[in-house]
Amino acid sequence: MPFISIRLAGSATKAQKADIVADVTRSMVERLGKNPAAVQIVIEEVSTENYGAGGQLIADRDAPKGDAHAVPGQ
Amino acid sequence: MPFISIRLAGSATKAQKADIVADVTRSMVERLGKNPAAVQIVIEEVSTENYGAGGQLIADRDAPKGDAHAVPGQ
Amino acid sequence: MPFISIRLAGSATKAQKADIVADVTRSMVERLGKNPAAVQIVIEEVSTENYGAGGQLIADRDAPKGDAHAVPGQ
Amino acid sequence: MPFISIRLAGSATKAQKADIVADVTRSMVERLGKNPAAVQIVIEEVSTENYGAGGQLIADRDAPKGDAHAVPGQ
Amino acid sequence: MPFISIRLAGSATKAQKADIVADVTRSMVERLGKNPAAVQIVIEEVSTENYGAGGQLIADRDAPKGDAHAVPGQ
Amino acid sequence: MPFISIRLAGSATKAQKADIVADVTRSMVERLGKNPAAVQIVIEEVSTENYGAGGQLIADRDAPKGDAHAVPGQ
Repeated sequence: MPFISIRLAGSATKAQKADIVADVTRSMVERLGKNPAAVQIVIEEVSTENYGAGGQLIADRDAPKGDAHAVPGQ
Repeated sequence: MPFISIRLAGSATKAQKADIVADVTRSMVERLGKNPAAVQIVIEEVSTENYGAGGQLIADRDAPKGDAHAVPGQ
Repeated sequence: MPFISIRLAGSATKAQKADIVADVTRSMVERLGKNPAAVQIVIEEVSTENYGAGGQLIADRDAPKGDAHAVPGQ
Repeated sequence: MPFISIRLAGSATKAQKADIVADVTRSMVERLGKNPAAVQIVIEEVSTENYGAGGQLIADRDAPKGDAHAVPGQ
Repeated sequence: MPFISIRLAGSATKAQKADIVADVTRSMVERLGKNPAAVQIVIEEVSTENYGAGGQLIADRDAPKGDAHAVPGQ
Repeated sequence: MPFISIRLAGSATKAQKADIVADVTRSMVERLGKNPAAVQIVIEEVSTENYGAGGQLIADRDAPKGDAHAVPGQ
């Protein structure tokens, strides 16, 4: 304990993921006095074709105009 | 807010995922008055070798008889 | 399959939750041809003291000015 | 590692939860050789007003006929 | 994006939760360049009767000897 | 119901996953009297570059000394 799940749209480098694990673990230790060995963190890198925001897939939202997915349902 | 995680056994096309994101976002807006921009949706396509139902992996349950995984534990 | 988890900041009425379950199940059936009986949905109503956005607890962000939590870390 | 989340519709007794934790930990140790101390398990008891299956809240599905929630959306 | 879920055994004060939200959001901004407004964080405070580690409920593990739950399954 | 998510650092064989699904389903049936057909289990095999424990990525923690990731933040 505690267990932390971090879902990111897109990917991160190994170094970025290592820094995030260090930051979040430090917060658990400093704020809650947790034993760092018990802090488990999972980082899920989610494809922008699988992450929706504002009613659209992020892949569509960020696609160059013209080749975005036809407006769903219409 | 809100955050929605959808776990599917197997995969879906990009168009299907876009339609699902639109449907679910519409529900949050119409039923709860949420701001669509704040609605985050993650779709996780889970291999049938990693999805269990009825005590079996779906990959085994749906495999042609004869090459299914030997009944676990026996 | 599929399994859907919906996390809301604050609460919803039973009728709203029932409507959301109907909407999301309908989307799984219409878009992916899923069997409605296999569609499981969990709605988690999260206190605004446990939901953070923009670096603040929503409870603090939405609190009347003056009694908001002192800016964390300062 | 590993981390296991178990979502139940309704509640379970403390003894049932203890037995489930023992069973699931034993499986991780026997099947994967995991160190039991590293196996974290969270059991979430979800109200039947927050758990949907077959397009309905379980609370409505299991309610005595006559006082179930009006069919959503109609 | 991103979405972060933090599960704690036991509870935390509002100030601790606010500090954690600030820390974790800062990490997303500094390490990944994320827009803080898009960073959603949910903190789940899990009863020690619902959190298992090392094959036991934490409530049993930390209970004064003598009234701990009878060893499950025996 | 119930829905179980199992996150593993690293991977497991199909046979191991099948055995785990059988074990965990059996526990739900024996301890809670659940209908096995309603028990859904998802096993997520997480790369050790995406799983943190003790403030480090497991990939770094278990890397042969000398080529581990430079200590984050320094």
